[in-house]
Amino acid sequence: KLLKMKNTALAFGFLAFVLMVSTFAYLIEPETFETWFNSLYFVLTTMSTVGYGDYSPSTFSGKVLTIFIYVFGIGLLSLVIGKIIDAVADFHRRREAGQL
Amino acid sequence: KLLKMKNTALAFGFLAFVLMVSTFAYLIEPETFETWFNSLYFVLTTMSTVGYGDYSPSTFSGKVLTIFIYVFGIGLLSLVIGKIIDAVADFHRRREAGQL
Amino acid sequence: KLLKMKNTALAFGFLAFVLMVSTFAYLIEPETFETWFNSLYFVLTTMSTVGYGDYSPSTFSGKVLTIFIYVFGIGLLSLVIGKIIDAVADFHRRREAGQL
Amino acid sequence: KLLKMKNTALAFGFLAFVLMVSTFAYLIEPETFETWFNSLYFVLTTMSTVGYGDYSPSTFSGKVLTIFIYVFGIGLLSLVIGKIIDAVADFHRRREAGQL
Ligand SMILES: [K+]
Ligand SMILES: [K+]
Repeated sequence: KLLKMKNTALAFGFLAFVLMVSTFAYLIEPETFETWFNSLYFVLTTMSTVGYGDYSPSTFSGKVLTIFIYVFGIGLLSLVIGKIIDAVADFHRRREAGQL
Repeated sequence: KLLKMKNTALAFGFLAFVLMVSTFAYLIEPETFETWFNSLYFVLTTMSTVGYGDYSPSTFSGKVLTIFIYVFGIGLLSLVIGKIIDAVADFHRRREAGQL
Repeated sequence: KLLKMKNTALAFGFLAFVLMVSTFAYLIEPETFETWFNSLYFVLTTMSTVGYGDYSPSTFSGKVLTIFIYVFGIGLLSLVIGKIIDAVADFHRRREAGQL
Repeated sequence: KLLKMKNTALAFGFLAFVLMVSTFAYLIEPETFETWFNSLYFVLTTMSTVGYGDYSPSTFSGKVLTIFIYVFGIGLLSLVIGKIIDAVADFHRRREAGQL
């Protein structure tokens, strides 16, 4: 099924989501993440479903936020990764076809 | 391949599955999870395939249940996430088309 | 893209793969897995990409086998999960249509 | 959506990406990975989204590289795994059809 959502809307929604939940995660558990960047790294590691476990929530509200992050974030990141795949494949097709 | 399962049936099946396996996991290994909510958090972390490893089964029956959770749960959660993606993309399409 | 591989061939290939790599993993690192069942649990946790990290290879040959497990196993398990999703969705459609 | 990228271009891009980021990861955090092979194992474990957490970056630049690895690497590995699935399914179809 093709998703024809505008790329700019997707990029904006993705950035807004990531920045928002990273900040929330850092505010809820500053002692877990130590820096805002570590919180961002945790959020992206979660959204990609890699989940090393080097950072993980220890409080009730931290776990509720984490559940929210993967239920909504996995779909969002897979849309973005899908767009990247399409763009790379498109670039190769055009180059093969001599249009670049 | 489009799955035209009714949304309500999917939501009901998803909830029933999650509540059931979370309760089983908690009953099998109360010392691992400590609270029912932690068991629910473990189940959703498993179904999303994030798998931090902050909670993981230590007994034979706990591991058998865990295998059951991801073999049946991953498909279930990906159906639900797919519905959420479709709904979000649909919402954007309609707004672009001026129907909202 | 629809994969029309016969279900029995898929089930047989899946079982043969899982039993074979579980046995290899156990033979290569018996001190990591302790029992053959733990090795099976590790293999399925890897193929589902959950990867808790409660068991992970510590030797060179164990890591080479692990890389083999996910490069070939992820596709295999996702085919099996896809079949399960199709079967469940089909069951619901037929029941809705009054054929069951 | 079918991706008709040439298999050789995909294989070359995949190998170049994996060798490059494995080397970068090893150079940035030699004390984390100890050997170049462990760095390669970490990169493939990340790209497959298994993410055991037995190796994970501890420095700022290591984490930035890791984010880069999964944002670009997940799509790349899923393309490769998709090609393997197609090839296996194709092989079975041809054998069934008596062409092999
Ligand atoms: K994972
Ligand atoms: K993991």
